[in-house]
Amino acid sequence: MKLSDIGEFGFINRVRRGIKVDAGVVRGSGDDCAVLAFDARYYQLYTCDMIVEDVDFLRTEDPYLVGRKAVAINLSDIAACGGFPRHCVVSLAVPQKTPVRYLDRVCDGVLSMTRQFKVNLVGGDMSSARQLMIDISMLGLVEKKCLALRSQAKPGDIICVTGSLGGSYKGKHLRFTPRVSESRFLVRHFGITSMIDISDGLMQDLEHVVGASGVGATVLAEAVPVNPEAKDLSDALCSGEDFELLYTLPRREAHRLLLKNPGMCIPIGSITDKKEGLRVLDAFGREIPVTKKGYTHFS
Amino acid sequence: MKLSDIGEFGFINRVRRGIKVDAGVVRGSGDDCAVLAFDARYYQLYTCDMIVEDVDFLRTEDPYLVGRKAVAINLSDIAACGGFPRHCVVSLAVPQKTPVRYLDRVCDGVLSMTRQFKVNLVGGDMSSARQLMIDISMLGLVEKKCLALRSQAKPGDIICVTGSLGGSYKGKHLRFTPRVSESRFLVRHFGITSMIDISDGLMQDLEHVVGASGVGATVLAEAVPVNPEAKDLSDALCSGEDFELLYTLPRREAHRLLLKNPGMCIPIGSITDKKEGLRVLDAFGREIPVTKKGYTHFS
Repeated sequence: MKLSDIGEFGFINRVRRGIKVDAGVVRGSGDDCAVLAFDARYYQLYTCDMIVEDVDFLRTEDPYLVGRKAVAINLSDIAACGGFPRHCVVSLAVPQKTPVRYLDRVCDGVLSMTRQFKVNLVGGDMSSARQLMIDISMLGLVEKKCLALRSQAKPGDIICVTGSLGGSYKGKHLRFTPRVSESRFLVRHFGITSMIDISDGLMQDLEHVVGASGVGATVLAEAVPVNPEAKDLSDALCSGEDFELLYTLPRREAHRLLLKNPGMCIPIGSITDKKEGLRVLDAFGREIPVTKKGYTHFS
Repeated sequence: MKLSDIGEFGFINRVRRGIKVDAGVVRGSGDDCAVLAFDARYYQLYTCDMIVEDVDFLRTEDPYLVGRKAVAINLSDIAACGGFPRHCVVSLAVPQKTPVRYLDRVCDGVLSMTRQFKVNLVGGDMSSARQLMIDISMLGLVEKKCLALRSQAKPGDIICVTGSLGGSYKGKHLRFTPRVSESRFLVRHFGITSMIDISDGLMQDLEHVVGASGVGATVLAEAVPVNPEAKDLSDALCSGEDFELLYTLPRREAHRLLLKNPGMCIPIGSITDKKEGLRVLDAFGREIPVTKKGYTHFS
């Protein structure tokens, strides 16, 4: 059996079955961050995300943006749980002949993001490898009442995104701004029932929400904000690395949010009963088949 | 300029100059773990350590032991600061054609260590790459009064190690037991002034202690416990991945420890004034030159 037979998520699920955790863990693997006991007011958020040369970036791309991205994808995970970032550590695997000026640019990118988002870079590790690889793990905090998971979406909730989707591979995947302030605004002022960042593609990430919440979802194709850089609707629905937030909230909360901050709230559909499954409807209410649901590392 | 011109530590020091941290950080990069504010009684410890195929292990070695090692090197960092482990996250970069049964064995090794040392595995990331790479980050706790850093060694202190050194590449690097319980015993009952785990080789890691503490050190070659697997004294002094603890404590504390638990306390020399530098003496008090001080990734 090869990885491509069971896929990345299939393998992860196999591993997860063998894991036991103690009472210090509020939520283990299976969300954007792990949620850990911290103090009376806060949970601690804990995540890791790596990028690999020729998979997530090319050597010909600006190393400053590569370093920036390595931090940004972790910030996006913290944002997806409603929290704010605190600390990070960076592991760097580097090919022997890499020029120091290239690595300096990578580190400048890393440090520009940690400064901008007030994250303490507190440690790291370095090794040699045949491909450049940056793995960052990050800690954050979230007020207990503000924690957003994937698992609390309810039938009737409105599904929203924070920005346009698709075409990220043309450059946005290296330049996106992680939605930390948007997330903080949302979780502090509105009854967000679930949240995830769109890293694997809208449909695949919505499937994660639907699966974790035990519900169904209907997306209205006409309502999906297609990025001008996207090839077509299918690209907006399925291509990865948008790093916008996908979230759900009760209808009355969505109305309130639309009045207060319409730019942050683009409604694209609603949560349904589980039996209705995950559907995309065109303007005439006809179901559009979605085949390849999103990015996968092993195929 | 290439990495081999300035070395791994040269590069890390360049990066560290650009880092600013806030009051939540008790000790940033530069020790075995970062030390973070936690609560009235504890500090939180935070570290990461990665292993890469063909650098830290071979594909022909038992994948169970490879997974085990990826966790053990992080446990060793937590131990080096006097703490106990709590949580970890695992990033896995995997070549496309890797058989699932190989990865299952790696994960069995990871889980056997997390269970044995009561660490919660709470998340991870997975990507494809041309070499197998496992990066783990780990959180731990340490009572404020038990925190052991590299920087508090004092002239007159005795230098000790917890076990024999050298020859680790013959197998111990994959099978070592991280010295968590030894560390906890030491920091809870004795006035440990500094501690580090021997990952880069005794002399190089002692140099880290000496540098951080602003002192010198004299090692007595005859006192160094040479592993039967080691080629010679130089191998015991300089080869990496022993993962024993190197620690210092005042002479009277060393005497007390030797009476209570001699197996945990192998004295190999003493801390001196800075001006005496880092020296190894033979049985006649003559200095033995040590050329290559330890393992480096870029040369």
